[in-house]
Amino acid sequence: MLPGQITLLEAHGCEPAALRAPASAQALFEEIVRRLDLRPVAPAAWHRFPEPGGYTGFLLLSESHLSIHTFPEHGYAAVDLYCCKARSAPDWRGLLARHLGAREVSIRLVDRGVRAAAEEMP
Amino acid sequence: MLPGQITLLEAHGCEPAALRAPASAQALFEEIVRRLDLRPVAPAAWHRFPEPGGYTGFLLLSESHLSIHTFPEHGYAAVDLYCCKARSAPDWRGLLARHLGAREVSIRLVDRGVRAAAEEMP
Repeated sequence: MLPGQITLLEAHGCEPAALRAPASAQALFEEIVRRLDLRPVAPAAWHRFPEPGGYTGFLLLSESHLSIHTFPEHGYAAVDLYCCKARSAPDWRGLLARHLGAREVSIRLVDRGVRAAAEEMP
Repeated sequence: MLPGQITLLEAHGCEPAALRAPASAQALFEEIVRRLDLRPVAPAAWHRFPEPGGYTGFLLLSESHLSIHTFPEHGYAAVDLYCCKARSAPDWRGLLARHLGAREVSIRLVDRGVRAAAEEMP
């Protein structure tokens, strides 16, 4: 089945300042797009929340989407890359360390288009 | 750990016409927002692709995000709801059947903020 894979990234131990300034994630998005040869179909959308000042970013891609949600109060960011075409994985840990100061990164790949019954994932 | 849960929905056997007309998913998004008492922070963004004519929709929420990618050539749509606050699950199968004509729906809930090492999920 074609419809691709979603990569769920959990970045812990980030610099709170990087999780309050969308410029950090804008640079992260730009590097992901460049390294994976992705094709945005519109400019990224950004929304900053009131204190503690996290933000959401979303980029529509020809290949599906890239999103980030930051939680400066937890030093945590969630990054999702939904890609309906195969891409080799970049060095996610290096990317998230460089742009967000992440010290610990969890990477999960979930295939889309499955027909499994309802289930809970850890 | 607070940062919530992502619900990954796979809708199969959909009406191809509903997967080519964003109006179907716009109505779906509106019903999800209403039923789950979600708070959009901006209007939804929509992008239609050339033939076979699928589309992407994305809605930034105070609670995180809602997205859809449709593949009319497969009668398939992928819907993601990232929710950083607990919500009771609606009748996803009924919602996707009513708005997209889905005949088969897979529902997966994935906790965010985990610190697990890299892993592959089925």
